[in-house]
Amino acid sequence: MTESRSRPTRADAVRLDQSDPLAGERKHFALPSGVIYLDGNSLGALPRSVPDAVGETLRQWGEDLISGWWDDGWWAAPERVGDRIGGLLGAAPGQTVVGDSTSVQLFNALTAAARLRDGRRTVLVDREGFPTDRYLAASVGRLLGLTVREVPMAGLAEEIRATGDDLAVVAASAVDYRSGELHDLAAFTEAAHDAGAVVLWDVCHAAGALPLAFDALGVDFAVGCGYKFLSGGPGAPAFLYVNARHHERFDQPLTGWHGHAEPFAATAGYRPAAGIAQARIGTPPILSLLALEAALDVFDHVDLAAVRAKSLSLTDFFIACADARLSGLGFEVVTPREHRRRGSQVTLRHPDAEAIMTALAGRGVLGDVRPPNLLRFGFNGLYVSHVDAFDAVAAIEEVS
Amino acid sequence: MTESRSRPTRADAVRLDQSDPLAGERKHFALPSGVIYLDGNSLGALPRSVPDAVGETLRQWGEDLISGWWDDGWWAAPERVGDRIGGLLGAAPGQTVVGDSTSVQLFNALTAAARLRDGRRTVLVDREGFPTDRYLAASVGRLLGLTVREVPMAGLAEEIRATGDDLAVVAASAVDYRSGELHDLAAFTEAAHDAGAVVLWDVCHAAGALPLAFDALGVDFAVGCGYKFLSGGPGAPAFLYVNARHHERFDQPLTGWHGHAEPFAATAGYRPAAGIAQARIGTPPILSLLALEAALDVFDHVDLAAVRAKSLSLTDFFIACADARLSGLGFEVVTPREHRRRGSQVTLRHPDAEAIMTALAGRGVLGDVRPPNLLRFGFNGLYVSHVDAFDAVAAIEEVS
Repeated sequence: MTESRSRPTRADAVRLDQSDPLAGERKHFALPSGVIYLDGNSLGALPRSVPDAVGETLRQWGEDLISGWWDDGWWAAPERVGDRIGGLLGAAPGQTVVGDSTSVQLFNALTAAARLRDGRRTVLVDREGFPTDRYLAASVGRLLGLTVREVPMAGLAEEIRATGDDLAVVAASAVDYRSGELHDLAAFTEAAHDAGAVVLWDVCHAAGALPLAFDALGVDFAVGCGYKFLSGGPGAPAFLYVNARHHERFDQPLTGWHGHAEPFAATAGYRPAAGIAQARIGTPPILSLLALEAALDVFDHVDLAAVRAKSLSLTDFFIACADARLSGLGFEVVTPREHRRRGSQVTLRHPDAEAIMTALAGRGVLGDVRPPNLLRFGFNGLYVSHVDAFDAVAAIEEVS
Repeated sequence: MTESRSRPTRADAVRLDQSDPLAGERKHFALPSGVIYLDGNSLGALPRSVPDAVGETLRQWGEDLISGWWDDGWWAAPERVGDRIGGLLGAAPGQTVVGDSTSVQLFNALTAAARLRDGRRTVLVDREGFPTDRYLAASVGRLLGLTVREVPMAGLAEEIRATGDDLAVVAASAVDYRSGELHDLAAFTEAAHDAGAVVLWDVCHAAGALPLAFDALGVDFAVGCGYKFLSGGPGAPAFLYVNARHHERFDQPLTGWHGHAEPFAATAGYRPAAGIAQARIGTPPILSLLALEAALDVFDHVDLAAVRAKSLSLTDFFIACADARLSGLGFEVVTPREHRRRGSQVTLRHPDAEAIMTALAGRGVLGDVRPPNLLRFGFNGLYVSHVDAFDAVAAIEEVS
């Protein structure tokens, strides 16, 4: 829907929901009544599968005690959950591992990536990326003696070409966390490879929201969090994807004992495990990790292509409603209108963003604000409806 | 009790338990029946306070959604839980933070410690420490261009003096994870300071088991895990203590956004927060972190000096039983007999360690084995009894 169409009605929303093949998924999430939850791009809603799984983990801890690491599969969880997430990334098994925070995984992966291109001295980092990505890139640059340049995505392709032989790593976010713009992973990955560099994608705002094709694109590394579109819970552990072709030379700085070839042998020196197990770091937080695992259950019977189609339908409809009802009230739609450039959120710009979002929260419409003037609304196709989108815009209109 | 005393009886154990001021604490832990749990030095038993707290966290996530970070105190949890653990370390508030794994915290702290002594090029590491400590020290040395020397604790004081002006950091474990030997924190800390170095203590096997006095000793840094004597659950987040006198110059490599002075301002460069908040890294795993917080409740009404006294009574009694019943069966008590050199475990050496421990598990006596020939038995004074100790030795005698 675009500005030229007629003003969308609530009946349109109801019709869209009636023909929504994912309408039945909402029942798998424990959403409070009276709330329109459009902040699942910050913290996904609670999947109904999680409390029982957490209760079972507590039972295992209480009854099985230390043997839970083996008898209940805790030890294998980082790779087991990693493979389930890998399935959402277009990654064959054995290339994804889960544990620690996104910040830690970014540091670890970026250092390992740069070491793959020893001798090259430049790292290019997405200037519009989440701050932690840029802070950690600067830290890695300082430790390895590399030049880290922050570059706007609009100029990244040119900068890759210009840096050429000195380029070690390109680190960028698949989806801009503020504007919701989806970048062209294929083109940037190819450009980085053409320059002889490796690429590290931050897919925090993409994983679970849209199909990815890491293996097909030959992506080198990717990191993402478990608590946004994967709905793994507050601070759910992050994941790291390392393309199998880099396993032989993968060389991480966080040489914790979990990544050792013989973690219980207490050998004198660090010797990495084979395969993706070498990217394990320390002991993972099992309660949080197995909550994330249970949250992934919904993806067992849902096709990510359908989730993506629903998300685009929702954001199309939200934008159409915004065009029809909000354009005269000082709002601007920041998120790209082209599907191929849109993630799973819509960002509106308004000078009174903070006050408007506070007023919306008072009406049960939850999004968030990125200073100074951006209102973000996330659309998880598994539990957000077109009626939610319609009612949210109506509420924005009312409070503005 | 020593070898010269008479053979301890089960009635002795019953009497000791009857006069145990901590006997009432066991009810706060959900131990399975038929099990003597002597592996709480690997994974503490489930505190009964934890399931309700975890259930409440799930409720907060489901109902409060993103606002849980503020309304339910999730954001403040790393420092709040840190202060509670700090109370067990002899640390005034504002010097302890919780999050990520022990391995990650060790890497972060060791790098920051070395940076405090810029220009000095040597790090001394406890050769008998847990493998992850040594692996990560080697990694930090490689990144910073430092020489890392692994030294047996018996030679550490001499090595500190010999290294002198070139010594940047001494990193060692307070308690040897294999032998259970407790080292002299005061003496080594003073020796390191005399050489102008800083000290990093790994207190994984000490925190919650015995009183510590970090502030009084002027300890610089310490790291420990949440899942041994703190009973925070499998993979519970680790803690980091940074003495307040180092906050001004603290300079960590894991510059995640949670440690930023303005974490939500998305500023262009990393600027550390004031105080211990600057040692936060990424988003902490809230389910695991708040489980740990609930596990600490037991320490609110228990004096660590009493826990230590109970632990020494238990290990004294276990050693006395071992002397009386096992010395003719090829067992050797590895753990020091002097109280000041004993942690909260007893380690026995036997050539058939693995087979014996397997047979013990079949009788519900749970300890663990460290290859090739060490049997470890941990004594958490909050839930282990003298009768447990007696019955464990009787079981060892039977299966040997």
